[in-house]
Amino acid sequence: MTNSDFLNIKNGRNLTMLVDFYELTMGNGYLDNNVGDKIAYFDMFFRRVPDGGGYCIMSGVQQLIDYLANLKFTEEDIEYLKSKNTFSEEFLHYLENFKFECDVWAIPEGNPVFPGEPLVSVRGPVIQAQFVETMILLTINHQTLIATKANRICRAAEGRSVMEFGSRRAQGYDGAIYGARSAIIGGCSATACTIAEQMFNIPASGTMAHSWIQLFPTEYEAFKAWAQTYPDNCLLLVDTYNVLKSGLPNAIKVFDEILKPMGYRPKGIRIDSGDITYLTKKCRALLDEAGYSDVQIVISNSLDEHIITDVLSQGAQIDSFGVGERLITARSEPVFGGVYKLVAVEKDGEVIPKIKISENEEKITNPGFKKIYRLFDKCSNKATADLICLNNEVIDDSVPLEIFDPVHTWKKKKLTNYYAKELMVQIFDKGIPCYESPSVKEIQNFAKEETNKLWEEVLRFENPHTYYVDLSRRLWNLKQDLLNQYSDLYK
Amino acid sequence: MTNSDFLNIKNGRNLTMLVDFYELTMGNGYLDNNVGDKIAYFDMFFRRVPDGGGYCIMSGVQQLIDYLANLKFTEEDIEYLKSKNTFSEEFLHYLENFKFECDVWAIPEGNPVFPGEPLVSVRGPVIQAQFVETMILLTINHQTLIATKANRICRAAEGRSVMEFGSRRAQGYDGAIYGARSAIIGGCSATACTIAEQMFNIPASGTMAHSWIQLFPTEYEAFKAWAQTYPDNCLLLVDTYNVLKSGLPNAIKVFDEILKPMGYRPKGIRIDSGDITYLTKKCRALLDEAGYSDVQIVISNSLDEHIITDVLSQGAQIDSFGVGERLITARSEPVFGGVYKLVAVEKDGEVIPKIKISENEEKITNPGFKKIYRLFDKCSNKATADLICLNNEVIDDSVPLEIFDPVHTWKKKKLTNYYAKELMVQIFDKGIPCYESPSVKEIQNFAKEETNKLWEEVLRFENPHTYYVDLSRRLWNLKQDLLNQYSDLYK
Repeated sequence: MTNSDFLNIKNGRNLTMLVDFYELTMGNGYLDNNVGDKIAYFDMFFRRVPDGGGYCIMSGVQQLIDYLANLKFTEEDIEYLKSKNTFSEEFLHYLENFKFECDVWAIPEGNPVFPGEPLVSVRGPVIQAQFVETMILLTINHQTLIATKANRICRAAEGRSVMEFGSRRAQGYDGAIYGARSAIIGGCSATACTIAEQMFNIPASGTMAHSWIQLFPTEYEAFKAWAQTYPDNCLLLVDTYNVLKSGLPNAIKVFDEILKPMGYRPKGIRIDSGDITYLTKKCRALLDEAGYSDVQIVISNSLDEHIITDVLSQGAQIDSFGVGERLITARSEPVFGGVYKLVAVEKDGEVIPKIKISENEEKITNPGFKKIYRLFDKCSNKATADLICLNNEVIDDSVPLEIFDPVHTWKKKKLTNYYAKELMVQIFDKGIPCYESPSVKEIQNFAKEETNKLWEEVLRFENPHTYYVDLSRRLWNLKQDLLNQYSDLYK
Repeated sequence: MTNSDFLNIKNGRNLTMLVDFYELTMGNGYLDNNVGDKIAYFDMFFRRVPDGGGYCIMSGVQQLIDYLANLKFTEEDIEYLKSKNTFSEEFLHYLENFKFECDVWAIPEGNPVFPGEPLVSVRGPVIQAQFVETMILLTINHQTLIATKANRICRAAEGRSVMEFGSRRAQGYDGAIYGARSAIIGGCSATACTIAEQMFNIPASGTMAHSWIQLFPTEYEAFKAWAQTYPDNCLLLVDTYNVLKSGLPNAIKVFDEILKPMGYRPKGIRIDSGDITYLTKKCRALLDEAGYSDVQIVISNSLDEHIITDVLSQGAQIDSFGVGERLITARSEPVFGGVYKLVAVEKDGEVIPKIKISENEEKITNPGFKKIYRLFDKCSNKATADLICLNNEVIDDSVPLEIFDPVHTWKKKKLTNYYAKELMVQIFDKGIPCYESPSVKEIQNFAKEETNKLWEEVLRFENPHTYYVDLSRRLWNLKQDLLNQYSDLYK
């Protein structure tokens, strides 16, 4: 069985019909007005980083590829659509014979990404490029949100391991499964979600719940039973009754009486409630005193980057964190506001840029078929800026480059000792997948490397420096020209 | 094809392995310690209503039944588990031949539910009753969260229709699909999620995006094309360039020049940005003036119950709301904190109640095998209180009943003219499904009826009256007895 067969059993659903109904009414309308074949360009991008952070971590490209590669309307789908009495025979026939033909580009997973730049671009017949809007947004919005949140939490842990524990509070089954995948990309060392290990080859782990303790006549007997079954992986949950008066003393007793004679070292204790700083300091001291200074203390209980930063600054003695609901739902800001906008159409083979105007300036789009360069300082190897260009522009990094702020255009910067790297890769060529995703573990490592190339000021949790996302001179001029056409509406 | 076959194609996944890894290590441990067959009782319950509301709306029971009825470990699952080198041959053999044998009870979907009462109860061999923890929590937590949020938003709309528009910002594919289902249960009139209509027979609808407008040379031509394709369903998005200077005048022009000669009445306009109150008042006046007082105004743009209440109080002229990200993610409070706790075990056929102690009093559990009565006032037909009893207690509502506050026990209330209704139904009998779910539409109606039976004070958005969830005298005494056994730990 190939990996893709296996994923099919686990994913096993045809998600073609997971689409906003208006994509279908528009598709039918495009065909009815003889513009279905018109080549259109769409960009997916976002406008602000959640939690006031300095960057996001791209995630979800593999699932987007899986979806696009498997687009297919079944007989039942066509029957159902027919029953709506909304669609023409021609449109239904088109769907019956649907063959994905678009070109798609995306920023590979694990890259730090910034507001305003295209994360995904689609070029193809408008009827198709429009149709995939819902799933592009749904996939990238969700996974990028969770990878970004996980990255914040893992950075707060300052090198200590963070395990993703949130399945039970996730928003739906995929919230748990793909959330776990994105948590690993963001930096988590493991997940509690078993199926995620199976699907993505990421480590799953876990020990016991309070119910294990409660099932036995006493806490001591519960610990003893555990130690006998798992002498080489003995991590005990010590807060079922009272950490200091019952849980920890019983744990140490079992370490001494059961594990030691068997010749095993205990792994650790877990605390899931109470005052983290106070309890971990006390437990650390008592464990050390009992000769268990190598035994780890694991904490879990409504954690996030702020609580982790807090308790560590108070001197809490923690080796590892289990983070649940606040990671898997990105609780502090659970919406990633990516949008998908038409940026150009083709007419007689020529690309005609399009713009979406708004009374809200931040909602105005960047027109045209574009690409992105990330510009690195050669000395420090740090990323200086992203430059959005028209697709046919080429940056020659052997010559100096002047970049400028697209709003406050007098703010200029001349780059001399730099190199330029194109960010987007093509993932579909005329409907055929043409990109091989790295493994999740490789993506995690890549995310770590690339994040390390950001300046400290961008990495800050609060009030980070805004990373430069500039427009090339040609793109900026084009945008101004288009805006000027609409200035009468805003007199 | 039966409905369940169809759902299988759409759901199509075996979610047996969507389980926290510790359920498996515990399962293996139970077997290893010869307690796997011990009969255990677990309750799923929650501790507080999100958003400071007065009640939640139960949702997700049908999906829980689907999951439990299809529990099955595949050969690949067993192989994978074997590769972890953690589990005994005996345990893997048990999983290979897994046959669900538990009894399960649940509060039917659509019921208002309250903190502290069991929403789901499971009785069966501990190895099985433990295993289903993750999916019970994941399913009920997610769907009850969204149904509850939708119910708040729909109540704020005061009878105007609310459409669920959030798929693109949902947390994963199931977040969109089951979120749409729960939104309908909470009171939404339709969803934009096409596959949700197919799966649950709930109405999907939608018209056009900004890209439709942008694709045509002018806004007028875009509207004209739409009107010609959909003369009987002409709802135009008027904010692509400028609502008052462009969108609305163009819409009215198309209504006059295209639809009127064809003999059709326009459906409405949609506004997706800008100052809602100002724009809708202006648009209403201009539409009325042009002879279109029957044409609806639809609003969509980061709405929730607070913004809806606000704009309606300012006199905004709105007929219908499209609500997206803030509903589908329950953005203001995206975690429903349901927990699953061991409440009893059987020993020689006798039920031995178990309690989970905590330094945090609200985390202490209600012990024993229980059931719930909802007590209604016969005169007003309003719900007065829920009474949690031991399972073998029977309320005879032909005689007066004294209920009391479980903390401030001097607060008592004597019910005379009342009737008692048992809340939970059995959904599995020794592993066999034994409950037929109503349709989603029927659940929606039921939710509306049952919500109407709550006192106005409980329905309030802010600072609602806390609905009484009391314990029967016998249950209260039992809990005190168990607590007293642990009082030494809290001296």
